[in-house]
Amino acid sequence: MKSDIEIARAAHKQPISDIAARLGLGAADILPYGHDKAKITHDAIRAQADRPQGRLILVTAINPTPAGEGKTTTTVGLGDGLNRIGARATVCIREASLGPNFGMKGGAAGGGMAQIVPMEDMNLHFTGDFHAVTSAHNLLAAMIDNHIHWGNELRIDPRRVTWRRVMDMNDRALRQNVIALGGPANGVPRESGFDITVASEVMAILCLASDLADLQARLGRIVIGQNADRQPVTARDIGADGAMTVLLRDALQPNLVQTLENNPALVHGGPFANIAHGCNSVIATRTALALSDYVVTEAGFGADLGAEKFLDIKCRLAGLSPDAVVVVATVRALKMNGGVARADLGAENVEALRAGCANLGRHIENMRGYGLPVVVAINHFTTDTEAEIAALHDYCRAHGVEAVLCRHWELGGAGAEDLARTVVAMTAERGAYTPLYPDEMPLWDKIETICKRIYRAARVDAAPGVRARLEEWQAAGHGHLPVCIAKTQYSFSADPAALGAPEGFAIPLREVRLAAGAGFVVAICGDIMTMPGLPREPAALRIGLDAEGQVQGLF
Amino acid sequence: MKSDIEIARAAHKQPISDIAARLGLGAADILPYGHDKAKITHDAIRAQADRPQGRLILVTAINPTPAGEGKTTTTVGLGDGLNRIGARATVCIREASLGPNFGMKGGAAGGGMAQIVPMEDMNLHFTGDFHAVTSAHNLLAAMIDNHIHWGNELRIDPRRVTWRRVMDMNDRALRQNVIALGGPANGVPRESGFDITVASEVMAILCLASDLADLQARLGRIVIGQNADRQPVTARDIGADGAMTVLLRDALQPNLVQTLENNPALVHGGPFANIAHGCNSVIATRTALALSDYVVTEAGFGADLGAEKFLDIKCRLAGLSPDAVVVVATVRALKMNGGVARADLGAENVEALRAGCANLGRHIENMRGYGLPVVVAINHFTTDTEAEIAALHDYCRAHGVEAVLCRHWELGGAGAEDLARTVVAMTAERGAYTPLYPDEMPLWDKIETICKRIYRAARVDAAPGVRARLEEWQAAGHGHLPVCIAKTQYSFSADPAALGAPEGFAIPLREVRLAAGAGFVVAICGDIMTMPGLPREPAALRIGLDAEGQVQGLF
Repeated sequence: MKSDIEIARAAHKQPISDIAARLGLGAADILPYGHDKAKITHDAIRAQADRPQGRLILVTAINPTPAGEGKTTTTVGLGDGLNRIGARATVCIREASLGPNFGMKGGAAGGGMAQIVPMEDMNLHFTGDFHAVTSAHNLLAAMIDNHIHWGNELRIDPRRVTWRRVMDMNDRALRQNVIALGGPANGVPRESGFDITVASEVMAILCLASDLADLQARLGRIVIGQNADRQPVTARDIGADGAMTVLLRDALQPNLVQTLENNPALVHGGPFANIAHGCNSVIATRTALALSDYVVTEAGFGADLGAEKFLDIKCRLAGLSPDAVVVVATVRALKMNGGVARADLGAENVEALRAGCANLGRHIENMRGYGLPVVVAINHFTTDTEAEIAALHDYCRAHGVEAVLCRHWELGGAGAEDLARTVVAMTAERGAYTPLYPDEMPLWDKIETICKRIYRAARVDAAPGVRARLEEWQAAGHGHLPVCIAKTQYSFSADPAALGAPEGFAIPLREVRLAAGAGFVVAICGDIMTMPGLPREPAALRIGLDAEGQVQGLF
Repeated sequence: MKSDIEIARAAHKQPISDIAARLGLGAADILPYGHDKAKITHDAIRAQADRPQGRLILVTAINPTPAGEGKTTTTVGLGDGLNRIGARATVCIREASLGPNFGMKGGAAGGGMAQIVPMEDMNLHFTGDFHAVTSAHNLLAAMIDNHIHWGNELRIDPRRVTWRRVMDMNDRALRQNVIALGGPANGVPRESGFDITVASEVMAILCLASDLADLQARLGRIVIGQNADRQPVTARDIGADGAMTVLLRDALQPNLVQTLENNPALVHGGPFANIAHGCNSVIATRTALALSDYVVTEAGFGADLGAEKFLDIKCRLAGLSPDAVVVVATVRALKMNGGVARADLGAENVEALRAGCANLGRHIENMRGYGLPVVVAINHFTTDTEAEIAALHDYCRAHGVEAVLCRHWELGGAGAEDLARTVVAMTAERGAYTPLYPDEMPLWDKIETICKRIYRAARVDAAPGVRARLEEWQAAGHGHLPVCIAKTQYSFSADPAALGAPEGFAIPLREVRLAAGAGFVVAICGDIMTMPGLPREPAALRIGLDAEGQVQGLF
């Protein structure tokens, strides 16, 4: 089989205006970016606001392993499969970050015959959304230092400015700096640093905002630090919210592209899945729901982190009600969860598979706890043996959940028709989504609830001061916010090596941060890198154009 | 009369595909960005390479004053005027930088009835070119620090890295920093800082590159600093040139927009006019020349800086041969050059006008020195008196140069038809452009030649070490490069207060820099700000969206 990039380059793309027409959108409803990308205009989105909403399907997965699960591939395959059986479906996924592609190779959106194109553009500047986030974020930063420089009327404590700058680049040298050196003309020196753009609260805000007015309101609520009285200072206090909104006006419009099978895909927004909620934008999901009968979307990492945040943050804040959950599993990844080393994955090992199924089982149980119907998508690898697949089917049957073998990687939508039919049947009735915890539950209890009920931790060990800060925010009126937990994606626990279904562990809660603009409290349980570095031999060394102007080395 | 932004918003824009069709470009030859912007593809540009070239008209001006000259307005008006009299003309100007608009109000491209639209997009993200320059520049920076971090095989001296980072933002706090703090995982600490994106050598390179291969070759020649033996280290040594080219691939394609009168305009690139050459891209100018009979372009600042660099840097390096020069003057600006204060410009003052004409006369003489026909465009203001205009005509007649009164600001192209006819007549034969100095003249002599023959300085006072560095570069094989002088734009001299036509002054040469990628040596004569700050009350405070989603406060 060809590589992902070979398949993507050979794709028979339709003009993006034709894809838009399939959604009922005319030429004036889109802003083309080249011939294969477009934004759906704010006006077109407003015009769809009252249309009946399609069914919302979340694709999530077991805990990720180096073996790969194929969550995005399954999202795309299911979308194509639904369209093949006559259900009008749109796929909604996140955009890729440009910077990391120059460290490690860039990635497909999906894989094999289940991909979204144009792959190269989506790994480079795409429609400029991330650049707009970078600009808006850094304008606020410049205005903060400018305010301090020109007399500091708000009495901002320069030592307590928490708003950093961002760049869409892997650049470790920017992590920790002293800025504004060189004398009075250059401002007031202080310690600061840069995060990568996808870690920006502005990115999370872009992905949670329902429209331009809500975007501006959220931007205004960003807390940038404290004043001399230790009171929070916001972006609205700085006066930056209006200008930031102007910089993000175009970026808030969802991007329309297509699958290899010429079905519509909205690729929009890309917040981190650890310190942020890791989902594509609310505005894209809502637009897709208004324009299609089925919307297939995914959430970052495994279901413990990604689906939990999709359900308890995105759906809660946006008033979305999902209808079904697809949990993707592979025989290979389950065997790794059952203790097999990566090098030994080629050999049949039904015992290990059975052991690893504990991981799958817990995710199924968790998803059912939200009141949603669940189906397991077995993303087929050619190395899977019949005995292994049978054992996986047995496990699912024993747990009362349907498992469907999928071959979309190899066959495209045709390989996911069975899954598509199952999903259509499962969503004949609307889902009865219940969030894990009510808004009014205190912040600390929310953290405990997630750790105990989703992760199955025995307890949460908070660092000194953490509970006091939570109580402060509770008193300041932020108690209704949901909680966004940043921890390793490899395990239910905080220990990346504890695969399967660990129990009885403690979750160490190191730090909490208030993302008042995005609208959640971040609970940091482990080391979270917000500015990656380049490796010793960065991919950039091999990236270039060939004689035909084609990009080489990016994939 | 309405404001520029009101006129721009009321423009009856044609679909950009119709504007492209006027240039003979089909749908596949352009990449649309929305409905009113497009890039001309690399393939379409290659296909035009052998077509006969139109006439190239440079619009330049007397030294700028706060009274305004209207150089861009005249460029646009002349383009529209040429089209009105049946000459197929395209306008080529630079793109605007996003960052400064959040400090002071953003600007129109042109003014009154002679503008290029869409004005808002062109002041914001436009087609993302500047973001691409930022990314490419900062990727190189990240790769330099990464190289040092992982063993520093090239033995780069961290104290002698001259490659800084860039951001398209006015942010004084980024001018001078200590980076890579926080321990070994964050790299090797060193002093550095940020410039604004338009000051990047990558921007100058984008504007001088003839195609993708030349772009990569130039990027590879960038000198980023010195190694332990004080030998230059290049971007190619770092291995960044290929990846930077990939990031700039789309940005190298010129942007097609339109005038208020629906004539084609290419708006592409935007290097500083002090430490860089201040012209739109070579690729845009060449493409316009292949697609039109007349190309009207402009250069930054007055003719002493802008036209000199256009002629001695851009035309020389690109092999362009201009056919005529339009020197824009206004009665108001000439009166300021003749000693009138801004507040007194309303009153008729023929004497001051005559005195100020010395500035115009010297620019005319300089332009003629390049072997080119010259016409003076009197950009009419409603406050100009008949006596003043008559005196200006008299002055020009006495100096053997035609002066044409232009009313394009008020009337659009109709107000520049006389100028258009004059230009057509002047360019019936090809221009006989001769550069000011030959390539083989030594670098120091080139600097002296510009200072003495164009500025009329008595001498150049070089700071210690400057001549030694020039000799070093001469010996290293850079002696053939042209020279790019960075000095105040307000005077022929280095003293911004010396208006008119000063003589006998010394030019202080503070520093020289090698821009080996762009292909020139920068001679810095005065304080040049490469990272502006925001004012006490930045425009950003008043920028926002109104209830209709329209941008307010940007203009």
